[in-house]
Amino acid sequence: MTTELHALPDHPTDALAIATAGPATRQGPASPTGGAVAALRPVGLDAVRLDPQGLLGHWQERNATATLPHCVRQLDESGAIDNVRRALGEVSGPHVGMWFSDSDIYKTLEAAAWQLGRDPANVALRAFIDTTSALLARAQEADGYLNSYVQSDAGRTRWDEMKTSHELYCAGHLIQAAVACARAGVGAELFAVAQRLADLAVQRFGAEDGEAVCGHPEIETALVELHRTTGRQDYLDLARRFIDLRGKGLLGEDDRFGRAYFQDHVAVRDATEVTGHAVRQLYLLAGVVDVAVETGDGQLLDTAERLWESAFQTKTYLTGGHGSRHWGEAFGDPYELPPDRAYAETCAAIASFQWNWRLLLATGACRYADEMERALYNAIGVATSTDGTHFFYSNPLQLRTGHDGSHEDAPSQRLSWYTCACCPPNLARLMASLQSYVATADGDGVQLHLYASGNVHTGHGELEMDTHYPWQGQVRVRVRAAGTQSWTLALRVPGWCAQATVAIDGIAVDVAVDDGYLRLTRVWGEDTTIVLDLPMPARLVSAHARVDAVRGCVALMRGPLVYSVEQADLPEGVVLEDVRLDTGVLTATDSGDGRVMLSASGLVPEAPGPTDLYGEYPSPPRSQARIPLTAIPYFYWGNREPGPMRVWIPTAEGEGEQ
Amino acid sequence: MTTELHALPDHPTDALAIATAGPATRQGPASPTGGAVAALRPVGLDAVRLDPQGLLGHWQERNATATLPHCVRQLDESGAIDNVRRALGEVSGPHVGMWFSDSDIYKTLEAAAWQLGRDPANVALRAFIDTTSALLARAQEADGYLNSYVQSDAGRTRWDEMKTSHELYCAGHLIQAAVACARAGVGAELFAVAQRLADLAVQRFGAEDGEAVCGHPEIETALVELHRTTGRQDYLDLARRFIDLRGKGLLGEDDRFGRAYFQDHVAVRDATEVTGHAVRQLYLLAGVVDVAVETGDGQLLDTAERLWESAFQTKTYLTGGHGSRHWGEAFGDPYELPPDRAYAETCAAIASFQWNWRLLLATGACRYADEMERALYNAIGVATSTDGTHFFYSNPLQLRTGHDGSHEDAPSQRLSWYTCACCPPNLARLMASLQSYVATADGDGVQLHLYASGNVHTGHGELEMDTHYPWQGQVRVRVRAAGTQSWTLALRVPGWCAQATVAIDGIAVDVAVDDGYLRLTRVWGEDTTIVLDLPMPARLVSAHARVDAVRGCVALMRGPLVYSVEQADLPEGVVLEDVRLDTGVLTATDSGDGRVMLSASGLVPEAPGPTDLYGEYPSPPRSQARIPLTAIPYFYWGNREPGPMRVWIPTAEGEGEQ
Repeated sequence: MTTELHALPDHPTDALAIATAGPATRQGPASPTGGAVAALRPVGLDAVRLDPQGLLGHWQERNATATLPHCVRQLDESGAIDNVRRALGEVSGPHVGMWFSDSDIYKTLEAAAWQLGRDPANVALRAFIDTTSALLARAQEADGYLNSYVQSDAGRTRWDEMKTSHELYCAGHLIQAAVACARAGVGAELFAVAQRLADLAVQRFGAEDGEAVCGHPEIETALVELHRTTGRQDYLDLARRFIDLRGKGLLGEDDRFGRAYFQDHVAVRDATEVTGHAVRQLYLLAGVVDVAVETGDGQLLDTAERLWESAFQTKTYLTGGHGSRHWGEAFGDPYELPPDRAYAETCAAIASFQWNWRLLLATGACRYADEMERALYNAIGVATSTDGTHFFYSNPLQLRTGHDGSHEDAPSQRLSWYTCACCPPNLARLMASLQSYVATADGDGVQLHLYASGNVHTGHGELEMDTHYPWQGQVRVRVRAAGTQSWTLALRVPGWCAQATVAIDGIAVDVAVDDGYLRLTRVWGEDTTIVLDLPMPARLVSAHARVDAVRGCVALMRGPLVYSVEQADLPEGVVLEDVRLDTGVLTATDSGDGRVMLSASGLVPEAPGPTDLYGEYPSPPRSQARIPLTAIPYFYWGNREPGPMRVWIPTAEGEGEQ
Repeated sequence: MTTELHALPDHPTDALAIATAGPATRQGPASPTGGAVAALRPVGLDAVRLDPQGLLGHWQERNATATLPHCVRQLDESGAIDNVRRALGEVSGPHVGMWFSDSDIYKTLEAAAWQLGRDPANVALRAFIDTTSALLARAQEADGYLNSYVQSDAGRTRWDEMKTSHELYCAGHLIQAAVACARAGVGAELFAVAQRLADLAVQRFGAEDGEAVCGHPEIETALVELHRTTGRQDYLDLARRFIDLRGKGLLGEDDRFGRAYFQDHVAVRDATEVTGHAVRQLYLLAGVVDVAVETGDGQLLDTAERLWESAFQTKTYLTGGHGSRHWGEAFGDPYELPPDRAYAETCAAIASFQWNWRLLLATGACRYADEMERALYNAIGVATSTDGTHFFYSNPLQLRTGHDGSHEDAPSQRLSWYTCACCPPNLARLMASLQSYVATADGDGVQLHLYASGNVHTGHGELEMDTHYPWQGQVRVRVRAAGTQSWTLALRVPGWCAQATVAIDGIAVDVAVDDGYLRLTRVWGEDTTIVLDLPMPARLVSAHARVDAVRGCVALMRGPLVYSVEQADLPEGVVLEDVRLDTGVLTATDSGDGRVMLSASGLVPEAPGPTDLYGEYPSPPRSQARIPLTAIPYFYWGNREPGPMRVWIPTAEGEGEQ
């Protein structure tokens, strides 16, 4: 591929962005142009290297060696690749799997591109991109149209079922894959395919009489990213148009879920509440912020921040997961957050991560980085098995004794693939680009948002992070400044941390937390060591009093990690639902390998209880026995034999009310 | 119609059943043959008259004057009747509404038949039955096949999609309508149509190589009822066959819900848990009991009783509703009973009522009558608006502030009809035959299960019930015995009643409750008055400690009625989710018109609380203000302006744990 294709020389904003981030870096996901109205700038794809000894680096490594190759294999095994061949008439029979199976291919291509950006020598991935791109190029029609489901059946008409067809959704993922290719410097053929389809979309939907939106948002953010990569204004215009056309009833009614399912019940700018299908809502909001920063549209940014409050003050799980309902894969009403029926789709957590990243760049506000961290270590982290090849689609906070895990909707364990396989390749593309989200830069200096062992190279200098985060709260940052100008190193103090301290070269620095960051401004010497201490005692967390589903319960957390109690750690014969927590006993325990478990004390009834489902209040007291309790990080659960689990534990204090 | 058609003279069991019940009565729903292995016998269709001044009589009257005519109109307006005309080629265009819309017609026909049994002079209903029967007879194919969805499109093949087609489900409802016609002495043409279809089913599915089951059980109970009406053994055999063919994978896999959705994951006789789609499971179990009693199959009856324990000890709402999940309209895991997302489909409550009736007849055990009462006054009663023409499909126990009620799945108010309109005509057929469920008889005497003002005529004599039940617990029964033999009047003492007393002609009788009944055995005089007193103080109810969703909450009940707190009764500005109940204050208040409301005392925070969704445990205490609380019967909620409601109220005592 040629760089000319992607970075048009007459488009000055990219150059600006790269200049801010440092000389040697390529752009990562969601990189605003230099002209964008954004508080912070990404440091780019090459600026950060995660150490595989750390948890985030390990996850990224596991993705490269296990998850991504698994996804590539599954594209063949699931029939997704054959679906494209079917569009070419090279394979017979009806389309296999979901009608939007092309998006599985595109997300895997995007992951491969980001991974090649980190590891250009990966011959297998390069071959995968080249072969698949060639196939897609052949399948693409002369005018740029590409969708294997529509093309494989003469009875189907393009753009005919915008409510359900996912044609633009798939196109969006193709574009995102292409943008990743451009930024990683691979896959020129794929970029050309994507741009042809994007140009067709502009032609078809950018025209005044072409009013339509896709039932599944995604293309909005993709088009802005393509604008950022190419400088083409028409892509940005179309993204904005798709946002502003929602709420006009263009998708018609939906008998089953209502118009809110598609976020078509109200104009985006007038919305006051996150509603409907969670992934749709969150992808849409990522696009909203992208358009807002690129066009300087303050009203759109206000909308995103208003909806963020709806989401994070009334509709977010403790794990950062979103979606309280399996029915419609949807947000629920405010404070409707059942742990057992949490849908908390993996893709929704990834979409939330992406949305928060965009809001962080737009505003610089710590709360968005806090939510990135919460989602990453919990709702996203839990989705992948320790071996990297099994995945949760829904991520409940409780699995009951006697749970029927016989189908894909709510399995008792991670599955190797799904009929609707949106989540695994989504995980792969996030993990392959994870380093890009660790730090940002602006004119004043560098901001560290996520802590992980590794290096950060910026125009201001090089930072070497050394930490056992999230197991330990100490982060050692060695700064090697590049110049003699004063600049600010901003260190995020997570919302969960009450008392952060910092020392420079062994001397405590008395600096107040400023909007979530400790900001250290100075002319940095050649070699300075900063030690940030984020004390992370094990702690008990309670939910807002309106969250009915976990009344009388507490959750165990330490640092950013949510913990869970799993059946495998209970004494023989104890039923998890019978366990009550003694809130007076809670300690952190090093498991010997650096990981930290929590130890607590529980109470269980000494004799079987009544079988009646309902009885007089108050229930007669029952004699209790004490048992030791071990809590493991939520993201680890389900890696042993299948069994019950719960994050929210009823307190022994509340037992009298049962 | 001719009685010869229905009551074959050479089939002795009907005659036996009628003899037990009394000379003048026709059979009501689910009437075992005289040869059936059943503890109790229905008293029949004509034996009971409900006084419209009482609540049950009022409901039956409202059904006759409002609900049933509304259903008849909606069959036209929804296109269900036109779908049949379409099968005849008399209407063009595609099938309208659900593919099983025929069942809406059949349930309405059944309701009309039962209603004509009570009110033979109803010309409009008679015309409805005659016209509709003639239409169906014309639409029926020569070999007996009848299904408007399949017949209206040449591309559809009969019996081809047993998993989803609902062909036998629809046939079952046709058969039930026909049985009702036979028992009410109307609609001979409809009976002939149904029997032709039943004969086709026997021919197609009774053959050894005809192994298949319907994805939606219903035909099983219908075939047994047809056997009871005709004496034909092959109908009973086919019902039994359909039950025993489940669990063999004949329906294949279901990608979305798993095989448990259809109750095809395990042989019925081996099942240990109610699972999957609740209406499917409960209709199936009604058929299981029907087959068990008619064939003397103790293993099948054991199965039904085992699954009853699964249902009523782990998966039943306080209202008697079933189905914890909107997704799959399904039972959840044990103790998974969220009040806000209770699906508790109206049809499931009706199916449960029918199942419990059959178990009551089979065993005579009080617990089944208790559950009939619980469902009737709560989960079923709530489904219909006070005006009789608006209905709930799902019946949640909580509606949140800010609830999105914009679609049919979870509307904020009852709707006049539904895309899937199974519930309203199901209510109509139950209410039209409601009197049949009040009492039973056996060789020893008469059993009263449901208390309502009205008369009960049996072979043993006439009973006149006078009561304000469920508002007041006193039931006055005047007995006019028909003979000089001693017999037993058994009066059910509901499970909720701790201290029933009874007096005969003003003299207290000291008799112990025997398996849920007070049994009074004597030679009854010409005119004896029994006064049963069932004290019904307002009471607080708690749920089993494993029901996480209502931890720290209590429900308010009085007698069989569940109460609810509705926004309309709260002081201005109070958010229902903020209300905590002072469990020390609870009184019953006559509303002046005989209905009883409950008065309690609540606490609400004096100032707005934190907006954070999660915080430290324990939460800081908040200053509280006291407010008066009014609770109305749950079945009345939603008849004022739409607004939040809840059955389970958090206690003030539990507030410290929030």
